[in-house]
Amino acid sequence: MTETEVVWRMPEWLPRELELSAPRHDDVSKMRLAIEVAARNVVHGGGPFGAVIFDAVTGEVVAAGANWVIEQRCSLLHAEVAAIAFAQRRLNTHSLATGNYELVASSDPCAQCLGALVWSGVRRILCGAQASDAEAIGFDEGPRREDWVSELERRGIRVTRGLLAGEARAVLQAYAARGGPIYNGPGASG
Amino acid sequence: MTETEVVWRMPEWLPRELELSAPRHDDVSKMRLAIEVAARNVVHGGGPFGAVIFDAVTGEVVAAGANWVIEQRCSLLHAEVAAIAFAQRRLNTHSLATGNYELVASSDPCAQCLGALVWSGVRRILCGAQASDAEAIGFDEGPRREDWVSELERRGIRVTRGLLAGEARAVLQAYAARGGPIYNGPGASG
Repeated sequence: MTETEVVWRMPEWLPRELELSAPRHDDVSKMRLAIEVAARNVVHGGGPFGAVIFDAVTGEVVAAGANWVIEQRCSLLHAEVAAIAFAQRRLNTHSLATGNYELVASSDPCAQCLGALVWSGVRRILCGAQASDAEAIGFDEGPRREDWVSELERRGIRVTRGLLAGEARAVLQAYAARGGPIYNGPGASG
Repeated sequence: MTETEVVWRMPEWLPRELELSAPRHDDVSKMRLAIEVAARNVVHGGGPFGAVIFDAVTGEVVAAGANWVIEQRCSLLHAEVAAIAFAQRRLNTHSLATGNYELVASSDPCAQCLGALVWSGVRRILCGAQASDAEAIGFDEGPRREDWVSELERRGIRVTRGLLAGEARAVLQAYAARGGPIYNGPGASG
């Protein structure tokens, strides 16, 4: 037991290659950025998932994340988890419920991220591709409840799904086509 | 978007106050350590949950974690998530499936941690208190499937529950008795 720190790093390409300073006021523009994060992440060797947390009032980007599981050697580092961690660090709070924040993800949340976003304090999630799209290329979405949408909504989190689903799905399919590793699928050992 | 790092720190009291260098070969000894982590964490102002990852072959402690959500201002930082992150950092891999590791937690996993442990690569989990014990003092366990145990087992993760359940529950009750914050309960805003 010698490790005293776990450090997650924002890849330097992310703020350089994406326009993160311009506010976005409509759902489609927000989702387009999340999909762009996913697509650029694949180019840089990461997983085909992106997520962005916006201030719903100002439209500003609070944090962005992508799937950095393999690159940063941490199974937790899904796009949604990364965005939540960087947003909470930026705002210096463990709960985004102190404001009005929304999480925009290029795909439906897996079992882990579904739980993570409940505790994060976001008020709304927007999803692009469906879980079945990720499963179609071999990803396991984990043990989620069938009624996860209503479980979120009864906890005060609004859910919008299928936004720009075709564009979001295209990133997953491009990842599969280039032979990207499916690191959590059945029988995967890493 | 100026944050370039998220850092989780192992509190310095943890390796100082607990005996982490001695191997443990039986389930009861392993669980006793996880409960002790939870109990010491409460004394230091943290949440009443502890988790330890063991090498199932050697009995050695790979990593320990506790609920540091409020202290480290990150909603992700449940005990199981902390233990997984520190273990993967120590072993320098995103998947503990390269070895034979087991996660021992003082309580049943919440929705987030249930998903996280599926992706972590651990081969077995041992739980102390039941989810209903955590709910009894006001914690929300999140949208979990009723059949979560069989969902884990069909993914190759063995599950043992209710180990030293009385001692584990006592930590939760002591936390409630001293008025510890229930930061993810219904209506909680942080």
